[in-house]
Amino acid sequence: MDYAKESLRLHYEWKGKLEVVSTVPVATRDDLSLAYTPGVAQPCLEIQKDLTKSYELTRRWNMALVVTDGTAVLGLGDIGPEAGMPVMEGKCVLFKALGGVDAFPLCIKSKDVDDIVNTIYLISGSFGGVNLEDIASPRCFEIERKLKEKCDIPIFHDDQHGTAVVTLAGLTNALKLVGKRKQDVRVVVNGAGAAGISVTKLLLSDGIKDITLCDRTGAIYAGREKGMNAIKDEMAAITNPGRISGSLADAVRGADVFIGVSAPGVLTTEMVKTMAADAVIFACANPTPEIFPADAKAGGAAVIATGRSDFPNQVNNALAFPGIFRGTFDVRASDINDAMKIAAAYALAGVVEPDKLSADCIIPSALDPRVVQAVAKAVAQAARDSGVARI
Amino acid sequence: MDYAKESLRLHYEWKGKLEVVSTVPVATRDDLSLAYTPGVAQPCLEIQKDLTKSYELTRRWNMALVVTDGTAVLGLGDIGPEAGMPVMEGKCVLFKALGGVDAFPLCIKSKDVDDIVNTIYLISGSFGGVNLEDIASPRCFEIERKLKEKCDIPIFHDDQHGTAVVTLAGLTNALKLVGKRKQDVRVVVNGAGAAGISVTKLLLSDGIKDITLCDRTGAIYAGREKGMNAIKDEMAAITNPGRISGSLADAVRGADVFIGVSAPGVLTTEMVKTMAADAVIFACANPTPEIFPADAKAGGAAVIATGRSDFPNQVNNALAFPGIFRGTFDVRASDINDAMKIAAAYALAGVVEPDKLSADCIIPSALDPRVVQAVAKAVAQAARDSGVARI
Repeated sequence: MDYAKESLRLHYEWKGKLEVVSTVPVATRDDLSLAYTPGVAQPCLEIQKDLTKSYELTRRWNMALVVTDGTAVLGLGDIGPEAGMPVMEGKCVLFKALGGVDAFPLCIKSKDVDDIVNTIYLISGSFGGVNLEDIASPRCFEIERKLKEKCDIPIFHDDQHGTAVVTLAGLTNALKLVGKRKQDVRVVVNGAGAAGISVTKLLLSDGIKDITLCDRTGAIYAGREKGMNAIKDEMAAITNPGRISGSLADAVRGADVFIGVSAPGVLTTEMVKTMAADAVIFACANPTPEIFPADAKAGGAAVIATGRSDFPNQVNNALAFPGIFRGTFDVRASDINDAMKIAAAYALAGVVEPDKLSADCIIPSALDPRVVQAVAKAVAQAARDSGVARI
Repeated sequence: MDYAKESLRLHYEWKGKLEVVSTVPVATRDDLSLAYTPGVAQPCLEIQKDLTKSYELTRRWNMALVVTDGTAVLGLGDIGPEAGMPVMEGKCVLFKALGGVDAFPLCIKSKDVDDIVNTIYLISGSFGGVNLEDIASPRCFEIERKLKEKCDIPIFHDDQHGTAVVTLAGLTNALKLVGKRKQDVRVVVNGAGAAGISVTKLLLSDGIKDITLCDRTGAIYAGREKGMNAIKDEMAAITNPGRISGSLADAVRGADVFIGVSAPGVLTTEMVKTMAADAVIFACANPTPEIFPADAKAGGAAVIATGRSDFPNQVNNALAFPGIFRGTFDVRASDINDAMKIAAAYALAGVVEPDKLSADCIIPSALDPRVVQAVAKAVAQAARDSGVARI
């Protein structure tokens, strides 16, 4: 199917993918008096006395904000807030269909960090959580950090953390399959944008010790002069223990794992041949991966994942965010922390039963109904264990 | 029924009155590829090329923002943004049930005019129109004016204009009933808040010449010193041709019409007795009117309307906003102007058939399905005639 052409045709037919509907009756005068004035004054007064009642008397307990500035939409780049809306609506559709989470899309007409932060903060009392989406790096890090400081609801940048969770899940199963331990492997992450940074941080947090982060310039190391920024400086201090300073080709030599969240075709069969035996390759650039599965296999890779639905092992954020928000909302968590993300990854990995685990099956399907259940349950438990659950 | 008690019980049961649902299928992998990535890139690119396509490829064509700062919620005053949410959700329920309009509620955590304006402006690209709600006067006027300057979508403060439209509709029928012409009557409007100002402006715009606006201090006139502000100065210049300078009691003496959007019990039977023959009384303070119908009748009033559902002739904004937004969205109007509001009022008045018109029936029921149809049709036509329709 020509997805582009058919999707455009359908979007003209659909005229939007969301509807805001009433869950209460409004057929009689009494109905109006109860759902609206004068009866509605009473729940208002209850919330005024105790703000936490907004989670019991309004939809806030289940309502996520999906918000972008339109600067890094899919692989399309900075296409502007209005043009980002079809993606945001689609995201909200998945939130509801997969996680039972109500989600509403907003596109902010500004690229200024403080404008974006202030806008989201000022409306945060209407939501139970915020899903930041498709905001360009490195601005996205500052926006997320400032929002986490200001807001008392969880802030989750899906392009960072959703990708990290699914990658960690897949990697957990892949290493099991090739019989390597996390603390022993050498990992190269290519791409120092939102996803690459977050993947690296989550893998470190999960106990992987030797990670080299690369960008267009090559390996990132403390003291590198070209193309650095605040977040790369921060990463340089906690990665690359071998002080690799060369190109991507230099970095992958002898590595056990390559994780690409970067650009089409940057990994070659020749480069894979220089990696350790039973190499694991995540080539997640979309739609054209860093290396196609057949070429990675020709270089000797044992397990290959991509971001595409037409190859095995799709790294798809839809595996993570619906269950993560479901679990977060179920316990009214104040944050989505690393413990919750790692729990989500392990739960996701666990959906692949041991006897089904194979090089072509390290990641389940996003449409498998066990996924959201397993992830939500694990996330809720991790929230309780880490003290951020509020009910 | 004890509406307060029963409404609170129901709100705990409902846990919110809105749901955000998908209008598209998401059961198969192909469904995902069409509603979300990779297919969704194509509609995004179409909008990037031509921003007006956001009205065809997303839900924007039918999506209203219902937004408050929580400073003038119902008669409860400044109860804060979170506590205002049950009202905003109720409003959205009515938008959908009565007008087929998708509406989403937001409560802004700021009382600063520029904060509020900027927040709404920055997210205005996600909506087809904005319904401002329960924002205290006089701040509401400045917020509306600034938003109208900045945004290219209609901005409608319902507490002002919804009330004005329904009042003009009721007054049109009431004057027909008592056989007086608009250009001849003397009108007193009591209350110089959002509703009073807007009612006065719309009646002037419709050709009523002699209106005296009163506040707690009494009649408002050019040069008055006590309790004035920018909007009252503006009104003083275009009202009170008789230069009445006394109390409300002085103002109503000899008047044909009293319109109260003010406080309980401020109009007495004695005061009604001093009005012209066949006086028309709109006593819209809620829940306790300026004068109860029986007391107004005892003073000789011919027609009485209130804001309550348990007396005849309820001035209820739900008669106006669903049809006004329906008509506005149907022609993608860039503004909701006076011509559209007056057209809405006449259409609403016209729903009461000539043979049904009586002192107890000058305003139809908000649940009468003819209301939204008539109002929407008239508003759409007025938008076309006044050049603000975009399709």
